[in-house]
Amino acid sequence: MRIDVTDPADPRLGDYVALRDTSLRKSLESERGLFIAEGEKVIRRALEAGFTPRSFLLAERWLPGLADVLAPHTDVPTYVVSEDLAEAVTGFHVHRGALASLHRRPPTPVADLLGARRLVVAEDIVDHTNVGAILRNAAGLGWDGVLLAPRAADPLYRRAIKVSMGTVFSLPWARLEDWGTALPLLREAGFTVLALALTPDALPLDEVVARGVPDKLAIVVGTEGEGLSQRWIGQADAVVSIPMQHGVDSLNVAAATAVACWALR
Amino acid sequence: MRIDVTDPADPRLGDYVALRDTSLRKSLESERGLFIAEGEKVIRRALEAGFTPRSFLLAERWLPGLADVLAPHTDVPTYVVSEDLAEAVTGFHVHRGALASLHRRPPTPVADLLGARRLVVAEDIVDHTNVGAILRNAAGLGWDGVLLAPRAADPLYRRAIKVSMGTVFSLPWARLEDWGTALPLLREAGFTVLALALTPDALPLDEVVARGVPDKLAIVVGTEGEGLSQRWIGQADAVVSIPMQHGVDSLNVAAATAVACWALR
Repeated sequence: MRIDVTDPADPRLGDYVALRDTSLRKSLESERGLFIAEGEKVIRRALEAGFTPRSFLLAERWLPGLADVLAPHTDVPTYVVSEDLAEAVTGFHVHRGALASLHRRPPTPVADLLGARRLVVAEDIVDHTNVGAILRNAAGLGWDGVLLAPRAADPLYRRAIKVSMGTVFSLPWARLEDWGTALPLLREAGFTVLALALTPDALPLDEVVARGVPDKLAIVVGTEGEGLSQRWIGQADAVVSIPMQHGVDSLNVAAATAVACWALR
Repeated sequence: MRIDVTDPADPRLGDYVALRDTSLRKSLESERGLFIAEGEKVIRRALEAGFTPRSFLLAERWLPGLADVLAPHTDVPTYVVSEDLAEAVTGFHVHRGALASLHRRPPTPVADLLGARRLVVAEDIVDHTNVGAILRNAAGLGWDGVLLAPRAADPLYRRAIKVSMGTVFSLPWARLEDWGTALPLLREAGFTVLALALTPDALPLDEVVARGVPDKLAIVVGTEGEGLSQRWIGQADAVVSIPMQHGVDSLNVAAATAVACWALR
């Protein structure tokens, strides 16, 4: 349902305000139970994955390219605005020309992922880029899902979705309720838990591969600044490292996850 | 040499203006032959690698932590400013508290890298984050250097340096003069050239590993949007793919480089 809007203060555009203001968006999106998808490809993937749109926001010239995407949603408002107005509302120039606001779904229970064979467990990774990249890497390399620590960044935040190339919609992921119970839960479900960290006594990744990779495996990856916290390192079945050369401290957590997901797939 | 500055228009701060304005910075930095390092760790690495500082810019409260870094450079101006003034000059809040302007060195000739055993060749990668991440991944995983296409982004651009964690200062890299001669040059120097791309006839990465990795190897990685261009794919000794699952199109180019550098090291 096409609706032309010319007033940036129009309350019907309320889902799209200040997309760069992370703290405002966090409260707004959780309060309204929505998330924002940006760009034709990502919007397409969200809809294919069955998410229900609340509205679309786009400039006239993006309409034709999205016609087939919009067609099944005639009851959903499509706000057509000038590019200047889009910028005034969202706070940035919308390069990819189209935004959608979609309903969140009830969280996936952790138990739904315990039948998997390969899981990435992400500690408190607060950077949306890293969360998105970890999901993309895990999905692309054939892992089955991602478990997120209670304080890890939201995979349905716009930036995380974009970096994940929409894999947040297709790869199963769930949020752990707390750290104390996560590891016993994984163990009980038959997982070997490997912590990825550069501790002095860590096993080099290629040794782990040479010894044979367990049938059910969870790798735990930590925050970039501090690395994986001691409570996880201490509880894991083993600590694995990607040995560094040229005096490099570590890989970025998403790159390290890619290497580990490849080597241990 | 401490110099307190209170006027954001002071011409002595000219090296630091508008750090977020990529096109302005490109011309300014090449004209003056400088680059900007941000944050204590990165500045430290640049100096350790032998780069000569032109000046430092920092807020009072960062002075103590950098005292040992600044000590050998008593002849170099250290501009001490308020955080507001730093923001007014640079155009952003300088989280890491310290900036340095350093002299560029003459470019490393491509020939200097041809004695290496493992090179990453980066096609026209225009994103500074990706260039920085590729350097960090190559260095951390023990590769010997990076060759950059003529139009690839500048590794000494502030954002690239930061993402590379300063590995741009220690890992050898050189810029290719043109595409037509690059491959014959590598071949003549004894390299096997593998193009990393998801073409239908590409060899899966694990098959390449199983067949045995050549002694001298160069992998060519392409831009994210379009992937590696046909002229390189056509000229390479073989095309290698990291097979994708879950309907994912590809990994990000830096993540793909990490996986390939690990598997082919």
